[in-house]
Amino acid sequence: MGEEKGAILQFAPFQSHVDEGFWHRLSSLKLNKLGIDDSPIPITGYYAPCSHAQLSNHLSLLSESLLAESSELATLQPSASNRNKCSVPGTLHNTNTLEAYLNIDKQSLLSSEAKKIWDDIHSGKAVEDSTVLSRFLVISFADLKRWSFYYWFAFPALVLEPAATLINIKPALQWLSSVEAESLSTACNEWRNSSSTADVPFFLVNIASDSSARIRHLKDWETCQGHGDKLLYGFYDPCHFPNNPGWPLRNFLALISTRWNVERVQFLCYRENRGFADMSLSLVGEADISVPPGWKDNRHVPNAVGWEFSMGKKGSKCVNLSKAMDPLRLAVSAADLNLKLMRWRALPSLDLSMLASTKCLLLGAGTLGCQVSRMLMAWGFRKITLLDSGKVAMSNPLRQSLYTLDDCANGGEFKANAAVKHLKEIHPAVEAEGVVMSIPMPGHPVTTQEEDGVVNDCRNLHELIDSHDVVFLLTDTRESRWLPTLICAALNKVTITAALGFDSYLVMRHGAGPVNAQSGLSSVTSGTSPSNSEGMRLGCYFCNDVVAPIDSTANRTLDQQCTVTRPGLAPIASALAVELLVGVLHHPLRMRAAGEHANADSSEHPLGILPHQIRGSLPQYSQITLVGSSSRSCTACSETVVEEYNTRGMEFLLQAINHPTYLEDLTGLTDLMKSACSFQLEWDNEVDDGEDCVEI
Amino acid sequence: MGEEKGAILQFAPFQSHVDEGFWHRLSSLKLNKLGIDDSPIPITGYYAPCSHAQLSNHLSLLSESLLAESSELATLQPSASNRNKCSVPGTLHNTNTLEAYLNIDKQSLLSSEAKKIWDDIHSGKAVEDSTVLSRFLVISFADLKRWSFYYWFAFPALVLEPAATLINIKPALQWLSSVEAESLSTACNEWRNSSSTADVPFFLVNIASDSSARIRHLKDWETCQGHGDKLLYGFYDPCHFPNNPGWPLRNFLALISTRWNVERVQFLCYRENRGFADMSLSLVGEADISVPPGWKDNRHVPNAVGWEFSMGKKGSKCVNLSKAMDPLRLAVSAADLNLKLMRWRALPSLDLSMLASTKCLLLGAGTLGCQVSRMLMAWGFRKITLLDSGKVAMSNPLRQSLYTLDDCANGGEFKANAAVKHLKEIHPAVEAEGVVMSIPMPGHPVTTQEEDGVVNDCRNLHELIDSHDVVFLLTDTRESRWLPTLICAALNKVTITAALGFDSYLVMRHGAGPVNAQSGLSSVTSGTSPSNSEGMRLGCYFCNDVVAPIDSTANRTLDQQCTVTRPGLAPIASALAVELLVGVLHHPLRMRAAGEHANADSSEHPLGILPHQIRGSLPQYSQITLVGSSSRSCTACSETVVEEYNTRGMEFLLQAINHPTYLEDLTGLTDLMKSACSFQLEWDNEVDDGEDCVEI
Repeated sequence: MGEEKGAILQFAPFQSHVDEGFWHRLSSLKLNKLGIDDSPIPITGYYAPCSHAQLSNHLSLLSESLLAESSELATLQPSASNRNKCSVPGTLHNTNTLEAYLNIDKQSLLSSEAKKIWDDIHSGKAVEDSTVLSRFLVISFADLKRWSFYYWFAFPALVLEPAATLINIKPALQWLSSVEAESLSTACNEWRNSSSTADVPFFLVNIASDSSARIRHLKDWETCQGHGDKLLYGFYDPCHFPNNPGWPLRNFLALISTRWNVERVQFLCYRENRGFADMSLSLVGEADISVPPGWKDNRHVPNAVGWEFSMGKKGSKCVNLSKAMDPLRLAVSAADLNLKLMRWRALPSLDLSMLASTKCLLLGAGTLGCQVSRMLMAWGFRKITLLDSGKVAMSNPLRQSLYTLDDCANGGEFKANAAVKHLKEIHPAVEAEGVVMSIPMPGHPVTTQEEDGVVNDCRNLHELIDSHDVVFLLTDTRESRWLPTLICAALNKVTITAALGFDSYLVMRHGAGPVNAQSGLSSVTSGTSPSNSEGMRLGCYFCNDVVAPIDSTANRTLDQQCTVTRPGLAPIASALAVELLVGVLHHPLRMRAAGEHANADSSEHPLGILPHQIRGSLPQYSQITLVGSSSRSCTACSETVVEEYNTRGMEFLLQAINHPTYLEDLTGLTDLMKSACSFQLEWDNEVDDGEDCVEI
Repeated sequence: MGEEKGAILQFAPFQSHVDEGFWHRLSSLKLNKLGIDDSPIPITGYYAPCSHAQLSNHLSLLSESLLAESSELATLQPSASNRNKCSVPGTLHNTNTLEAYLNIDKQSLLSSEAKKIWDDIHSGKAVEDSTVLSRFLVISFADLKRWSFYYWFAFPALVLEPAATLINIKPALQWLSSVEAESLSTACNEWRNSSSTADVPFFLVNIASDSSARIRHLKDWETCQGHGDKLLYGFYDPCHFPNNPGWPLRNFLALISTRWNVERVQFLCYRENRGFADMSLSLVGEADISVPPGWKDNRHVPNAVGWEFSMGKKGSKCVNLSKAMDPLRLAVSAADLNLKLMRWRALPSLDLSMLASTKCLLLGAGTLGCQVSRMLMAWGFRKITLLDSGKVAMSNPLRQSLYTLDDCANGGEFKANAAVKHLKEIHPAVEAEGVVMSIPMPGHPVTTQEEDGVVNDCRNLHELIDSHDVVFLLTDTRESRWLPTLICAALNKVTITAALGFDSYLVMRHGAGPVNAQSGLSSVTSGTSPSNSEGMRLGCYFCNDVVAPIDSTANRTLDQQCTVTRPGLAPIASALAVELLVGVLHHPLRMRAAGEHANADSSEHPLGILPHQIRGSLPQYSQITLVGSSSRSCTACSETVVEEYNTRGMEFLLQAINHPTYLEDLTGLTDLMKSACSFQLEWDNEVDDGEDCVEI
């Protein structure tokens, strides 16, 4: 049509704006769902007609840009119509490494995104749903350890060759008559207020000879032709510049020229003020487009541009959110990070929420108790109760890894309380509790005056164990483990024992209790006798004993007491105890799982085999696994003893505490010993193996 | 002689008084020398003539009561004559347990001590050396963990049957004429001021008819007889009572009656005021003794009494010194306690002073560095330097056992500094130092501008390693271990490596360096090529590699980074690393000791075998030991490389850092790889075994 040669039409590019919520959701999605999967992720960007110079040209990512649940990804839909959030379909390429991010083939990504636009223009899809005329892509690397996010946006625009030339551009109010402007304002406001069109960013404006303006969908283009009305190609313009249209017009022009062969285009850059059409801010421009020869052929995809400029030049952006985050939240998220990363590849089946909600009771807050609670925290356990009656002494901090010398002042803090304090210094979100209490012990007889207190302790211990899921036996004497072992057997609690000799260690899990009552696993064992999957009930710490536990502290010289062990033992045994627990908790049969040996085929479970006992020797640097069945004469977990406890309760306990031989009579050990003695067996060697010696 | 019947003569008993210094020395002797040896220990008590009502009847134990070195015990001698410290020979029965203390046969101990007195009276020894007339014994139990000392004194006194009766007793000033009193005062002061008699507590007083008084030794008794002079039996009286003599008189009376057949005794209770004889405080008494019939026969030992009364009744005393002690000293002593107890029986050869003076350099203060430094402290190492360039991040405290969340504030403290701070909170006497520095790495090329800094780092690292005895490699990448490995090989330093995979660990000690220079063990290896006792030089961390170390962090996804390991691994590997070091340091060949396998006869050393490598698997709960020889193509410890480093120094290092293939060419690995490739071996599997992955 016209012969005028104007300047090249220039477009104000989009500027990306990413809300923190987006990065939070991306982090969570990556950690919890995607793992190492780095496939492109569909996301949605949002923009709106410019209504304020400071929001000019923004394309925003919000938390809802990314649907957190991967199950929703398949059915990604633009959110409900929102006049200030016109959706733009985008693609996120989040790489697994910074190197991959830096080495990404940006031109090829941009071209393939541009091709989608090109194809949609040619197929007519862009006319049906103009949303797809604007697209964007983001490449990113989320450094979840440092809360740093590297990213780069591209807003692909098909390049017209030669470029469109601008004939003129001016505020719509000048281009239109005042009546036309009034009518157009009204029409636009209606369009923008209708839920079906509010977020339709490209449209046609028909201005009839009577100055009445009407907005139409792109698909109505044909019906707008031929009756002499003025036709403006309108679009929501995110730009506020007085002489330039915003970025969305570029692909719109490509559509207009390619699809409709229009060579001179009058366009409306629709802009608002305070939510209403503003014809003084909106622009009308006139441009010439020469459709390049090849464009008719959709196999020839035109060049595309659109990588975002940052600070005036092409470049990646980086944001670090660690400082902006609430310290507690940051701590919690940092704490889970390593564990969640383990699920990406090494242990996809790791059930972190199960671990976090498992209630652990640690009997003993000494060398083992401190280290076990540290290990539990590192594995993501968050509910930890420590029971101990002792106070922190000067010689403790060097081996008991939660305490410092300050805890020893003024006679020493109670270990249970000091441990809780320090666990919270490590991780404020831990739900740790301290219980200052001693455990009644057989072989430590009580006077009549003391009976009430001891009965009270027994009841409290029973309630504590009942209210937890897992019990660790980490006390410093064999006999203090008897009552908890019995109660755990009666209540069917997962029970883990760690015990140290001078240079050897034993870590074991107790078998299930002998009576099926109160089992949380009725579906597995209902109707059958309580047994593990191979029909054998695993033993407890006392199952190999042939005498009842007695007072083992009497007559011990200082160097026979419990802290006198090689320092390496406690951290090793504690680590193994918690690793073993994690294995038990991930086994479908839990405490009823059969005991496995090393060299068993561990491919079944990524955590490895589930042994019953692990014994190690420091002088030999060796470690073996053992399986032992429960003993019918066990003084702690046999059916006889558990039944007595269940029926006679405290009366039975007092009898056992005051008269240890009572347990031996009850379980038949007395008879066993008699017969054993007649064979001259050296039972003593087996009983006093020194592995019951652990500092509390 | 007389017919008067007086009251029974009553004696004021000794009261024990133990100086804190005594308990300190006893603790030290027990811990460091005696161990479980509970044989009776000769000790010395001290008393003096009473000079003040508040010091009345004291028998004191001071630190010098106990000679600290057991070698001195054999030659126990009273200390040089001191007029205020008359020695009393005593015996200490220090038991190993509270039970043994409570069950001690007190009557029999007392009798046997009394018998010594009895025998000395009969043999005449008591006349020659009157010191042995007073004896005492102490039973005790030293609870070294709580700084509590239970003890009970006995001051054995032979019981006269019937008891001596008192005729009269009055101040010497009243009994003597004033001239006699004057003369006696002068004589006594002379006796007390002569170094040969100042601490001779029993003596004879001869008062001639001219009122002149003369003091004589007991052995001069015969010469005092028969010339009508008054004869007083004098003794240093620790008592201040106006009507009673002190305890020493009891056995003196037994001597007088048994040995000299005297039935009426005039005795002088010698007392002082401000260091001079005081005849108004001193008493002269007269008593009748009937020597029992059997006393002439020394086989009949008379009954003895003398267990001390406490608070008016017989009973044990207890003192707790923990509150009175300087907190730092108490902490130091408590810290060493468990270790010293280990030497009593389990590890008598443990050389704690060697460990305390061994300077350890830890490269890396992450998960492994924190745990290794805790283990070192527990084993009694007191000189620890930590090197790390990183800061404490939010995700660290849960696995890096020295840090708390507070260390993460404001971007995080430097780990090296935070670690030192926390080590001192655990044990204030540790000599810990932090070095904030990164380790130059091959495969991480540097620009010309950076070269000076890198060369500086190399030099600093060399100096640091040179000034330490032991180096731990605990960094998070394989390549950061190259330079320290090389420097350790060049300087022949004991080097321990700990490295983690996702669920496996490797702990190893490096072999000796290839060049014999600068070895501290020239006596062992002089004249021979550097090799262990079996002629094989053990390998280093790089000896199995067939490529030079390169940048291993690039292209690692988050879950392939180093914190993503099962939490139990680091405490296990750290514990083993320090146990291994303790083994190396106790071996006479140290780093040149041959690598031993598990199941080797470990009876040779109480610490057990000394393996070269320990590899463990958590899924299998297994652990094995391996021995590997050094490689002539090793990029870190081979003679070629060490020679290059020694001769070309920094120039060589920059070449290696900037051009990793240079190392491969130098060592012949390039050729090796070429030939290997022609055999289609899958070298990659061996190289990338994932065990080089440890968080710094």
